[in-house]
Amino acid sequence: MKYFHFPFKHRLATQFNLFDPFDSLDSTCSSLLCRHAHNIRVLLCVDPTPVSSDLLSLLLALELIVGSTVDVDHINLPECGRCGITVTNVGVAFSEDVADLAVGLLIDVLRKISLVTASLSLLPGLKPVITHWALRFNLTHNWIGGKRVGVVGMGKIGSEVVKRLQAFGCIISYNSKRKKSAIPFPYYPDVYELVVNSDVLVVCCALTEETHHIINKDVMTALGKEGVIINVGRGALIDEKEMVKLLVRGEIGGVGLDVFENEPHVPKELFQLDNIVLSPHCAVATPECFDALEELIVFNLKAFFANKTLWLMVNLE
Amino acid sequence: MKYFHFPFKHRLATQFNLFDPFDSLDSTCSSLLCRHAHNIRVLLCVDPTPVSSDLLSLLLALELIVGSTVDVDHINLPECGRCGITVTNVGVAFSEDVADLAVGLLIDVLRKISLVTASLSLLPGLKPVITHWALRFNLTHNWIGGKRVGVVGMGKIGSEVVKRLQAFGCIISYNSKRKKSAIPFPYYPDVYELVVNSDVLVVCCALTEETHHIINKDVMTALGKEGVIINVGRGALIDEKEMVKLLVRGEIGGVGLDVFENEPHVPKELFQLDNIVLSPHCAVATPECFDALEELIVFNLKAFFANKTLWLMVNLE
Repeated sequence: MKYFHFPFKHRLATQFNLFDPFDSLDSTCSSLLCRHAHNIRVLLCVDPTPVSSDLLSLLLALELIVGSTVDVDHINLPECGRCGITVTNVGVAFSEDVADLAVGLLIDVLRKISLVTASLSLLPGLKPVITHWALRFNLTHNWIGGKRVGVVGMGKIGSEVVKRLQAFGCIISYNSKRKKSAIPFPYYPDVYELVVNSDVLVVCCALTEETHHIINKDVMTALGKEGVIINVGRGALIDEKEMVKLLVRGEIGGVGLDVFENEPHVPKELFQLDNIVLSPHCAVATPECFDALEELIVFNLKAFFANKTLWLMVNLE
Repeated sequence: MKYFHFPFKHRLATQFNLFDPFDSLDSTCSSLLCRHAHNIRVLLCVDPTPVSSDLLSLLLALELIVGSTVDVDHINLPECGRCGITVTNVGVAFSEDVADLAVGLLIDVLRKISLVTASLSLLPGLKPVITHWALRFNLTHNWIGGKRVGVVGMGKIGSEVVKRLQAFGCIISYNSKRKKSAIPFPYYPDVYELVVNSDVLVVCCALTEETHHIINKDVMTALGKEGVIINVGRGALIDEKEMVKLLVRGEIGGVGLDVFENEPHVPKELFQLDNIVLSPHCAVATPECFDALEELIVFNLKAFFANKTLWLMVNLE
């Protein structure tokens, strides 16, 4: 097991025989693998830690990978299929927390909350007359109600985002692989068409070959100078290099990002801008999510060792 | 007219004879008043600029004060009543924007968005392995859904706040002068009772003699170490000195504040804490609000000079 840093690790260790590279004196993964690879039957994949075919080729006894994320694109699924390794994910358990953060990032970018908090902190001696106070920060904010929000990806997260934004009076439309009969909002099969009808994009689809860089230079340019992008899906859904260039040149209005293309690397140009709000891929880092995750992991580990049916198996065909 | 800094000032000046102390070489209010006090028939009160009985005693021709805020507690209303001066406010025009900011502050405090954005900016060279990234910030966030939110003040802003928070799955209850039949949530006539049943307080009532320091030391202590307070009403609704002490001692969980007791003064202790989100009384500083405000002000000024009925007159009895 690699990079094991769940807050409930000590409880798991009382029930299962855990190997964590961070526990050994020589904390390299390879040393752990050399000693234990032939015994490891289950790999618990913490966050989107890559599980490559090279890693899989070392774990000859591996039967199950318990994922701790919604998307499992970081795991080489075709190779798992070929080797008969079962993979589980976390289903929709985290959707509400991801939607909460998406809406929080959206309000923060449009209303400049992080910027203002940081600005006030930098200027504790500021003593203007009261009416100048807000205007000194050039704080003409953007209204939330009436904004045309285009949601890219209408799974469980997307529908939770929509539920929240409706209450703010946003005008919703969406793009996804196919039209969803339960979603009473305009559907655009082409993301470019969605964007030309949107002020704000919320990106929350799965990362696949088809959706890699779905938000490319053309799409972002079409969104325009006032346009805002929120990404709580995966970094590589956006062409990050192009996004940075457009932000630096003021050709898109702002971004709120929980995910980045090469995590933990964050493009340093972003730190020079004041129309960005960033969080380090922590949309699901709530105590309630960790509780749900622990329950799910324990259930699947117990089920596996008791030869019972697992929860949330990923279709590998 | 005092501290006149609306973005639409130039348009007003084409229709009315405006006096703005900031336009004169000697920009003190007193010099402007000495020259023009006897001619001024209308005072346009920008933001919560105090209108004292002293100021009123100088403006002998004053017939109307056009307020630019929801609450007009900064205007000496009894004195206006005695002098036969009409006062208008902005009614519910800004309620949705204030509610948006309240919810934005709430998500920001609970999910630590401003803190994380600032932390990432301070650590651009940070290169931990990906799974440590979020945990390095000790980012176990608070869930939004399921939080018991107590709303203090159930006017138009309060009801807009409730509409939004319901979509997040929050559990709502409220305190206000009286029970509102249209609000289907538990009502607590005593704010202390509300607090012991709440995880988060959203304070959005009017400031009156009765509500001054309604959130006092006892109330805040009852809210407890995990409790969060959002204030988008008026600073003096909270005993700010006690709030700062409790925050410093870790006896309340966090605050999101758009208003302060002695604006523009912000207690400097707040800048040392990481569980605060601040904005400089700018809940309504959106372009759409300014448009609505301009329309309202122009309407009332024209109506006044044409002896027609004004919008949104404040009851002075």
